[in-house]
Parts: sequence; C-alpha cells; structure tokens
Amino acid sequence: MRDAYLVGAGQSDFGSFPEESYRSLFRAAYEAAVESVPAGIDPEAIDEAVVGTLGVGGRQIGLPGPAVTEHVGLSGVPCTRVENACAASGYAVRQAVQAVRSGMADVVLAGGFEVMTDASGDRTRWWLGVSGETEYERLSGTTFAGVYAQMASAHMDAYGTTDEHLSQVAVKNHANGAKNPHAHLGFECTLDDAMGAATVADPLTLYHCCPTTDGAACTLVASEDVVDGYTDDPVRIAGVGAASDAVGLFQRDTYTAVPASREAARRAYEAAGIDPGDPAEHLDFAEVHDCFSIAEILAYEDLGFCDRGEGGDLVASGATELGGDLPVNTSGGLKSKGHPIGATGAGQITEAFQQLTGRAGDRQVEDPVRGLTHNVGGSGGAAVVHILEREREVGS
Amino acid sequence: MRDAYLVGAGQSDFGSFPEESYRSLFRAAYEAAVESVPAGIDPEAIDEAVVGTLGVGGRQIGLPGPAVTEHVGLSGVPCTRVENACAASGYAVRQAVQAVRSGMADVVLAGGFEVMTDASGDRTRWWLGVSGETEYERLSGTTFAGVYAQMASAHMDAYGTTDEHLSQVAVKNHANGAKNPHAHLGFECTLDDAMGAATVADPLTLYHCCPTTDGAACTLVASEDVVDGYTDDPVRIAGVGAASDAVGLFQRDTYTAVPASREAARRAYEAAGIDPGDPAEHLDFAEVHDCFSIAEILAYEDLGFCDRGEGGDLVASGATELGGDLPVNTSGGLKSKGHPIGATGAGQITEAFQQLTGRAGDRQVEDPVRGLTHNVGGSGGAAVVHILEREREVGS
Repeated sequence: MRDAYLVGAGQSDFGSFPEESYRSLFRAAYEAAVESVPAGIDPEAIDEAVVGTLGVGGRQIGLPGPAVTEHVGLSGVPCTRVENACAASGYAVRQAVQAVRSGMADVVLAGGFEVMTDASGDRTRWWLGVSGETEYERLSGTTFAGVYAQMASAHMDAYGTTDEHLSQVAVKNHANGAKNPHAHLGFECTLDDAMGAATVADPLTLYHCCPTTDGAACTLVASEDVVDGYTDDPVRIAGVGAASDAVGLFQRDTYTAVPASREAARRAYEAAGIDPGDPAEHLDFAEVHDCFSIAEILAYEDLGFCDRGEGGDLVASGATELGGDLPVNTSGGLKSKGHPIGATGAGQITEAFQQLTGRAGDRQVEDPVRGLTHNVGGSGGAAVVHILEREREVGS
Repeated sequence: MRDAYLVGAGQSDFGSFPEESYRSLFRAAYEAAVESVPAGIDPEAIDEAVVGTLGVGGRQIGLPGPAVTEHVGLSGVPCTRVENACAASGYAVRQAVQAVRSGMADVVLAGGFEVMTDASGDRTRWWLGVSGETEYERLSGTTFAGVYAQMASAHMDAYGTTDEHLSQVAVKNHANGAKNPHAHLGFECTLDDAMGAATVADPLTLYHCCPTTDGAACTLVASEDVVDGYTDDPVRIAGVGAASDAVGLFQRDTYTAVPASREAARRAYEAAGIDPGDPAEHLDFAEVHDCFSIAEILAYEDLGFCDRGEGGDLVASGATELGGDLPVNTSGGLKSKGHPIGATGAGQITEAFQQLTGRAGDRQVEDPVRGLTHNVGGSGGAAVVHILEREREVGS
C-alpha cells in the first residue's frame, strides 16, 4: 500500500458572495492549492479529481464535478462527484487517498464547493434539512438546528452540560476565526453575546449555529513515489477512518453521541498507530465538525479527547483554545470560518496543511507534528476522520 | 496493486413501480447480488459501500448512500454516494476497484438506484435535463433528447447515417430485452414501429429514446486475497478507464463523437492489455450506453469497434446482434431494459457478470471470456469503461 501525502491545499474566502459563481469559487480554491505546492505543480500532472458538493441548488445538478474541473482547465481527467451531505469533501479526500494507494493515480485533486447564500428564508432551512432524514425529520417539519437542539437537550439532561458550555465553544471559535483572513464571520464574540442571542432552536441560540456560507476548498494528494518532486516538507496522510450510521437521529440508540464519529476515529487511530485510549496525547491540534456548538462538545467525547459527558468541562478548561493543550478549530471552525457544505471537509484539511507547514499566521500552533480533522454528514449519518502528520523524511 | 474481482451482481426489475421506494428497489438488487455469490457471503464481510444516484427527486437528497445501506442492514460501513449523472454507478464500481486495490477494503458493495416515474410531464424533461449543461442547455430550453438529436443530425450529415440505422439499434435491443425478465420494455419492435413512431426531437423518434425507469443494481467487488472464499469462477476486473469532458455539447470540438468515451476506452484497453487497434477481436460482448439510439452508433466508433462514420453500417451488418461477431447490449440496453439513471452502470456490469458466469438465460452469449461495459454521464461530460474477464485460475 503506497503512502499518500498532502502536497498542497487552499481555499477561497468563505462568506456571502452574490457576485461569485460555484465555478469561480472553485477556481479560487484550486489556484490557492496549486500555489501552495512548494516546488510548484504542472496541472498536467494531476491524474484525477474528486469533487464534493451537496449542490441541490439551481446550478449544475448532474455532473457538477466535470463542470468545475473543466472550468479550471482539467477537462479530460477522470472526475467523480461525491456527496455525503456536510461530509462531502472529507469523503472526497478519502477517495483521493484510495486512488493514490490503489496505484491508479499519482496526484489527485480533491476538493469541494457550495453556494448557499442565494437561497433565503424557507429555502435556507430546506437546504440544511436535506442533510437530515427526509420523511420523519424534514418533511415532518424538523429543522436541522432542531435535530442538533435535541442532541443538546439530551446531553444537558444526561451530563449537566450548560448554555455556558455551548457558548464557550462559540467564543473560542470566533476568537480563532477573527485571526483567519478567509473566515465568513471573522469577528470575536463575548460569552454574553452568545448566551444572550436570539434562540434558533431551544437551547441553541444564533451564536450556537454556524452560518450558511459560500466557498470552496481544494487539496492535492500525491503518492510516495512522486511526493519528492513537489515538496521537501510533506504532510503524510497517516490514517483515514470513515463510518456510516442511520440517517435519522430518531433511528439511533443514543442522542448524546455520534456513533459514526466514534467509529471513524477508531479506524483512523488504528490506521495511524495512535493509542485510542489517549489520542489527545498524540495530537497537536484538531479541526472538528462544529456545525452547532453542541457538535463540538460531542466531538470531544466521540474522538476520545475526554470521557463521555465531560465535553463541556473540556471547553471550559481552556484546553482547546489556541495555546491550550489541544487547540481545536484554530481556523474558526464551521462556526466562525463558515460552513459551505461541500467545501467544509477539504477546508478543514486545508487548515491542517497550513498548521503543519507553518503557514497559519496569527493562529499558528507552535511546531505541530500531528493533527486531526473530523467531518460529519447530516446529524451523523456519515463521518470521516483524517490524521495528518508532518514528516521531513519521506519514503519510509 | 491487488487485483479486483466481481464475485456477485444483481438487479431489481427495471420498470415503473409506484408501489416501491428507492430503498425497497435497492434492497431487491442487494439481495440479488448477495444471492449470486457462488459460495455465499456474510454481510459482515462487506467492508465498504459506494452508491450511485442522481437523486434529484423529492426523496433523500443528502446522504442517500447511508440511507440505503442502513436499509439493507449495512449501517456502520463507510458509505459514499457518487454521482456523475447517468454514469453514477459505473463510477461507483470504479471507486470500489480503487478501494480494493488500495488495500483499504477487501469486499466492497457498489451499486446504484433511481426512482424516476413518480415525476411527470415537464418534471421528467427537467429530470433528464439536469444531466446536460445548465445555463446554455437546460435553462435555455434544450431537452436532453434535443442534445442527442443534434449529435444524430451531425452524424447523419457527416457520414450518411440514416433513420434506418437508428431504428436498427432499437430493433436489436428490443429483441434482446424481450429475452430479459428484468427489462422495462421487454417486448420486440419492428423496423416500421421504430421508424414510424412519433418524433421526440427530430430525427429521434420515440423508439430511438430510452424510457425513464425505476430500478436498482448492485455488484460485489472483492480483492484477490479473499476471492477464493466466494467463488471458483471469478470475474476479474481487468481494466478500468474513465475520462471527463466539457459538460455542454456546444463546448466540445465535435458533435459526431464522445471524446470522453474514446479516452476512457483507451485507458481501459491499456490497463487490460487489449490492442486498441482492434479491440473487438478481444471482446465477446459489450454493454454500451444507448440512452438514444445514436449513442450506440457513436459508442461503436468511440470504443473502436469500427472506424469513424461506420457505426450505422455496423449495426446494419448484424454483427452486434445476439449471435453476431460482437453482441452489443444483450441485456436490451438502456433502450429496452430501461435507464434508471443511478442504476444503469451497475446494471451493465450485472449483465456482464451474468454473461461471464453463464447465467444469461435466453440471451446467453456462447462461452464468453471477456466483455466490456461503457457508461456515459450526460451527453459525454463523463464516461467510464470496464473490461471484465472470466478467469478460472485465480491469483495470477
């Protein structure tokens, strides 16, 4: 099995861009990824492309993958569109790893995009609702915030998690996002802002919910056989884990955990040779799927950063702040950086690439060696975890 | 690079099934695939799933992959939904091959589904239109039949292809489909029926167009390390090739060929060690993408079964009939068997599996060793070709 490396990654600005198209956003991310490759890369070297998007809007519904690769001049390469709701491009990167490890490609472009802000009102709720279960959730009137609100309520009831805990996630992630020039909501917020904001779905306030966002992100994955030609400072994709679950929250055994995240993490840790008993010991940072602030607390527990029920205490301790023991969502996360559905997974990996190659600017973690990304589809119908490792010596 | 084998494949009936759901159709295909494995297979052995669907209807829009794998009891396995319009599940099988060759999975379920007949009138045209280019084709009023009608007109003008040639494709494929118990339009038609039918988009008549169809198909792909446990009569996936192109017909250099098909075939032939100068010499049958009858004639030429411009003569010669030198679309093809978009690619591979393992009943080709499947997305924005080979000796 050939090793797969990240040799480049980049993203567009995340935000609301009525003057941009899905193609122009993808192009911005593609160009940023190409420019990030230390030794440069000839587009001719790209053997394959995998593009993640939910893409249910009024744009290119069939074949959105070839539509964007054509736009950046890659027409001809095998191109596959993948979708697993909000985990679309996390799965795109995983597929790129499979393509490289299979020997069928040496360099694969894996990215994603979404344009969401041209929908309004009911349409926005519908947009997000399609990531939930259709018959018993969306068509029965449950909003997507409502699904996570149920998880928050259950977690509060079971473990004493508080509104303050939920708000501390928002405060932390906005503090990070304020340092990220690509963030959609790149401003700080206070605990009072978060706790006092309007309720979206009780107990979640506006500041406990990520925005709907336009944006794109791209990564370049290369095989061990060619990585030397692109960089002296490669990032190895040390472990990948994925898992699915029932799409509807009501169909699962628990409301206070995301079993697919737990299983995806277990597989990724095993692949990367990380002790699942204390993974935080082996990680220098993590980007986790905080579509709602409760989701970050659940992620702490599902990924093994703390024991079950202690996620609220972990954020309160400051350990996951920039400068803490395990900084989480240094990019600002979905909460502040934004959540353009199909772009989010590749965007998380872009942040990890920037951290591991020392390009994270004001939000740089000190000399990190290993980071984790965690991308969830829907309320946990799919999850994918990547472990990324800086490795100056290649070919081991 | 580990070899990948087809150890099972099956499909639901293709047709119009108002009483079925996308889940029940997928279950029928899954159960048929599982039952087709000679030594049987424990669902626990399935490591991963890849599900193709265009899925733009009012069902599970986000996460349709986990929604169907959950329904058949595979909740938990990594599951990815892929989409490349009408080539969705051809690409799903290709992804399964990558997963197996990468060493990340030993057995992968790759399938697809579509429910189309619950749309009517304008909605049906819209359904198919989404596989074309959005701005300059669909939103400007070009139907999908209209796109292929332009290709037919150009081919007739350039090479003298006739209405009779187009109709001979329909007659041949209906003759085959009449022998297929799973076919949507499983009846024979005459040349007069085809030539005299109502015009859909000049020069294409109703009989030159495939139906809109409900259905599902599933395949089981296994690695060389485990194939012995499932069968003594494995089908090796000897070659896979894929390519993309501009999504809009108007953006391409030619209207009389599908460049993505040509390039996908070139790659598949190279991978399988087949002389691209005379591939027909090495093939015992082929399933090609005949969404419109002109598409089968283009496929003959793009796949190298005959020279450019001679596709009409090839069908007229009878060489592609059952019993001819190179039977094409023994299943009935998209024309007669039906075209449930996301199921079509896996359905073609199901036919190849049945032919290569001697299960094709009245439409059995005599002792075939090697077959080809050809699946096109849109009017050629994506294409994927598989070469499948019977191989009694495993592990070479």
